[in-house]
Amino acid sequence: MRKVILGLAVSLDGFIEGPNGEYDWCFTDQDYGLSDFFKRIDTAFVGRKTYEMTLAMGDQGSNGFPKLKEYIFSTTLDKVKDGATLIKGDLKAEVEKIKKERGKDIWLFGGAGLTTSLLNLRLIDEISLAVHPILLGSGKPLFKNIKDRINLTLLDTKTYLTGLVSLRYSLEYT
Amino acid sequence: MRKVILGLAVSLDGFIEGPNGEYDWCFTDQDYGLSDFFKRIDTAFVGRKTYEMTLAMGDQGSNGFPKLKEYIFSTTLDKVKDGATLIKGDLKAEVEKIKKERGKDIWLFGGAGLTTSLLNLRLIDEISLAVHPILLGSGKPLFKNIKDRINLTLLDTKTYLTGLVSLRYSLEYT
Repeated sequence: MRKVILGLAVSLDGFIEGPNGEYDWCFTDQDYGLSDFFKRIDTAFVGRKTYEMTLAMGDQGSNGFPKLKEYIFSTTLDKVKDGATLIKGDLKAEVEKIKKERGKDIWLFGGAGLTTSLLNLRLIDEISLAVHPILLGSGKPLFKNIKDRINLTLLDTKTYLTGLVSLRYSLEYT
Repeated sequence: MRKVILGLAVSLDGFIEGPNGEYDWCFTDQDYGLSDFFKRIDTAFVGRKTYEMTLAMGDQGSNGFPKLKEYIFSTTLDKVKDGATLIKGDLKAEVEKIKKERGKDIWLFGGAGLTTSLLNLRLIDEISLAVHPILLGSGKPLFKNIKDRINLTLLDTKTYLTGLVSLRYSLEYT
């Protein structure tokens, strides 16, 4: 079955954006394993807020992103951009259906709301964090409103000379 | 000058205790670099809540802890246990004075209130985290109410077979 991978850059204090949506602190000087990651996936899960943010930013070219099949999760939107698929229905059933389809793994690319829902429904299989050497102090936290403890198994770590530490875990639902 | 080192076990989602004060998730099967850490320090900074918690737990023997000179930080207490020193006055001046005294490094052993105050006063020199492979979901966060961004320099990482990742950073105040 295809895996859902939560893959994001975070500060050491667990924020994915600064208090004003800043992500200027994210390192862009090298690949940090991203091209290998992109080989694993062909699909992206995107929350409504993240979707609207990327729409507002416009199409800034591929930025090295592979062409992904996009699913936009929203209870309020009625339509999404051409080529993307809107998921409004039963989250658990819809995600389980997509995971059973043929294809590569699926990148869960924020935001916090969708991440929380999928964690609580036990639908996320891996977490892959690029921990940046900074305390942001405030902003948007990666993890919030998780209901229960979730045990993790460390799969891989990589330390870069710039101080970025990549941590990859699988989730052990009991 | 002596360094103040914030050294703690955290969950991947940044909690130092579960919602009911639990720390049963902290690995105790091996040393995890603690005995080397203890060689560096001879003094502990303890917040009032943490102090009261350890008092309530009673003296459970040394637990491998070295004998440390303890400073208890509180604006409300009038006295502390024999052998410990109460710090009530100007936090910045008092900590700077202690840092200039002769001695080994100083272990900042929580809690969140004292940690926040010392981070915002730029008095913490190192952060040493034992990142445990678990999402607790809720509890006491390590970092909160930090006012400004703080850049970090990664000093050292160590990955254990159990999935614990030790991360050590110095703080770069600008």
